[in-house]
Amino acid sequence: MSGSTVIEVKTASKTYPFVIGPAAREELTAFLAQCGVTPETAIFIITDQNVIETDYPQELKARLESAGYTVYLAVAAAGDASKSLATAEQLYRTMLQMHIRRSDVVMAVGGGMVGDLAGFVAATYLRGIRFIQVPTTLLAHDSSIGGKVGVNLAEGKNLVGAFHQPILVLYDTSVLSTLPSREWTGGLSELIKHAVIGDPALFHDLLSQPASDYPGPERTAELVARAARVKIQIVEQDEQESGLRMLLNVGHTVGHAIEQKSDYSIHHGEAVAMGLIVEAELAVNKGWLSSSDRDLIIQALCLHGLPTGRPDQPISPILEIMNLDKKHQRQSWTFAVPFGIGDVRVVRDVSREDVIRAWEATNIWREGGVE
Amino acid sequence: MSGSTVIEVKTASKTYPFVIGPAAREELTAFLAQCGVTPETAIFIITDQNVIETDYPQELKARLESAGYTVYLAVAAAGDASKSLATAEQLYRTMLQMHIRRSDVVMAVGGGMVGDLAGFVAATYLRGIRFIQVPTTLLAHDSSIGGKVGVNLAEGKNLVGAFHQPILVLYDTSVLSTLPSREWTGGLSELIKHAVIGDPALFHDLLSQPASDYPGPERTAELVARAARVKIQIVEQDEQESGLRMLLNVGHTVGHAIEQKSDYSIHHGEAVAMGLIVEAELAVNKGWLSSSDRDLIIQALCLHGLPTGRPDQPISPILEIMNLDKKHQRQSWTFAVPFGIGDVRVVRDVSREDVIRAWEATNIWREGGVE
Ligand SMILES: NC(=O)c1ccc[n+]([C@@H]2O[C@H](COP(=O)([O-])OP(=O)(O)OC[C@H]3O[C@@H](n4cnc5c(N)ncnc54)[C@H](O)[C@@H]3O)[C@@H](O)[C@H]2O)c1
Ligand SMILES: NC(=O)c1ccc[n+]([C@@H]2O[C@H](COP(=O)([O-])OP(=O)(O)OC[C@H]3O[C@@H](n4cnc5c(N)ncnc54)[C@H](O)[C@@H]3O)[C@@H](O)[C@H]2O)c1
Ligand SMILES: [Zn+2]
Ligand SMILES: [Zn+2]
Repeated sequence: MSGSTVIEVKTASKTYPFVIGPAAREELTAFLAQCGVTPETAIFIITDQNVIETDYPQELKARLESAGYTVYLAVAAAGDASKSLATAEQLYRTMLQMHIRRSDVVMAVGGGMVGDLAGFVAATYLRGIRFIQVPTTLLAHDSSIGGKVGVNLAEGKNLVGAFHQPILVLYDTSVLSTLPSREWTGGLSELIKHAVIGDPALFHDLLSQPASDYPGPERTAELVARAARVKIQIVEQDEQESGLRMLLNVGHTVGHAIEQKSDYSIHHGEAVAMGLIVEAELAVNKGWLSSSDRDLIIQALCLHGLPTGRPDQPISPILEIMNLDKKHQRQSWTFAVPFGIGDVRVVRDVSREDVIRAWEATNIWREGGVE
Repeated sequence: MSGSTVIEVKTASKTYPFVIGPAAREELTAFLAQCGVTPETAIFIITDQNVIETDYPQELKARLESAGYTVYLAVAAAGDASKSLATAEQLYRTMLQMHIRRSDVVMAVGGGMVGDLAGFVAATYLRGIRFIQVPTTLLAHDSSIGGKVGVNLAEGKNLVGAFHQPILVLYDTSVLSTLPSREWTGGLSELIKHAVIGDPALFHDLLSQPASDYPGPERTAELVARAARVKIQIVEQDEQESGLRMLLNVGHTVGHAIEQKSDYSIHHGEAVAMGLIVEAELAVNKGWLSSSDRDLIIQALCLHGLPTGRPDQPISPILEIMNLDKKHQRQSWTFAVPFGIGDVRVVRDVSREDVIRAWEATNIWREGGVE
């Protein structure tokens, strides 16, 4: 037995299994059958250039073919520039050439970029076909859950998209052994975020036994399953991001703006760590969070090689980007902020001044440490 | 009172009013308020060059502005070439420049082209915002109901899209006075289709008192409301096109292929009329439809200036296009065919040979009549 953990994800629109384990790939065809994907179905795999070099997509393709499926493999260039309408259009056309039909399936094999792109293509091709996520990055434990899919525009990330739940997420943690260390570290940021939101035991586990480098498929599967449960519990209750789901934005309201302002030279996970610190500072200033809990958050980020301060730049462009944030109403800003470890809340009364004050009070981070 | 008819459309995902009347525009702001669209909401109107020349979008804009709404107006080139990812991308960008947010609304003012394009943009902008249909063509009584939205690819029509229900359809039939006569006639084809599917009294009304030219806003409102009820009853029971909704494809399985093969020189409504005749012939051959009912269908089309035969061309390219039809499984073809006036059924055992036989037996149509 490969020892995978199976978590049922129950959303309003459908229920699907999130399967995670150190050898989950061995169970792929069994889970496909369980999800009603029979060998008459064609499977259109979408992956990227770096992932294809690991040979994992080819291995999955071979497994599927020997189980009788017809499989196609499309490879996008690696990097978020491929998360575009132009790449989506190329994929639609390839799918048409391959005669992919409504009853067929798109399978994303890759990180969040591939998942978001392939999910958007699946959501819109012939008005929507079934979709399977096979994550290959640590961050993708976050992006593969919840059904948010989409592409970027020149104006910003994820501005075009849909909610399209997968029918299966199959996460084999062995595949993370080839992940570049900066990608591993970036994913830790979301792992810590999920611990702060809803799993204090996970948080303290990470403090006492940091996973700053890939700790092998077994421990990774255990850590990720716990973080995934936090996200799953939230999206189950709020599929369309009307309320509770905003909790998942902790670190992201400020983080996204930092990421965008840096022209993505600061990676997502790094920016989220920075955002988490600024938002924790804001929460301390408002009397919502104890300074000792803020310090624990900073410590957890530090132990995992993540930034522990904010970039050295004026705040005004950051505020301008935040003002365009999808989740804000025209009048008031909405923030998810930490009130404690395992206690994040959505607040609607954060002012520009609160953000400015927190920004100024946060340490400045440069490669190598705070100053 | 302007005397509009209000039909509640109840789908699994939401309930919304379909409002139709000779002066429905006067009730726009009242219905907006009823749908929860308050004047803090920005309204992004999408229309096309021909519709803008009727001054109707400008009139609606002025009405909305005097009720306190912020309104933007975007004008696409007229014609189905605008139903593209490229136009959608331009619209997303304009919406971002205008700071359109998740809580704002897209309003389509136009025919099915504008409705499908604007609906797709609304379905995907920021992962989906609210959407209002203000139809201005006869055909749009069909396209504005049911939530199918989408754009074309070079390979074919409606290949990319979503299901996105509007929150309101407001149909002022006075606006049809400026509709070019070929567009009026094309829309009649769908009107007759809806009568054949589910309203024999409407069918006989059209036979005894044809509406071959625009009969004024009052009678138009009455005819369209009846046809709309047929479609509404079907989509209420089958939002995502899993079964019953296939009834609406009568005339379209063959019609779409004719339209596409002609490179759209044969318009949609004309192609549907041709498809209806070939499919009626097929049904007679299979013993499903009486030849007298087939002749009534041909007569109704004839009285409304629609084609009463099929194009003069070999069937093989038609079959090839049909084989790509979204609704077919890989193995068997699915057809909606008339069994009588007011009785259309979905059948799954139609062979290529059945289609070839019906095609050969159908009169050939050239501009001006059958030969
Ligand atoms: N949908 C959501 O809810 C959601 C949530 C968070 C982030 N995202 C999106 O996810 C994306 C970021 O995800 P990501 O960090 O996984 O990025 P990514 O998919 O770009 O992967 C990062 C890099 O690692 C490479 N890679 C992936 N798997 C590998 C492996 N096993 N071995 C070696 N290299 C590998 C990729 O080619 C890429 O170069 C962004 O586009 C972001 O917007 C989406
Ligand atoms: N979503 C659906 O369920 C559905 C169903 C059927 C058809 N469609 C789509 O609808 C489109 C066809 O719809 P259509 O026939 O309304 O086409 P259309 O929107 O292109 O309108 C036809 C022509 O009439 C012009 N026009 C529109 N209103 C006018 C007015 N009041 N006065 C003068 N000119 C006017 C338009 O500019 C255009 O040139 C196609 O793209 C088709 O795929 C969608
Ligand atoms: Zn994130
Ligand atoms: Zn039609």
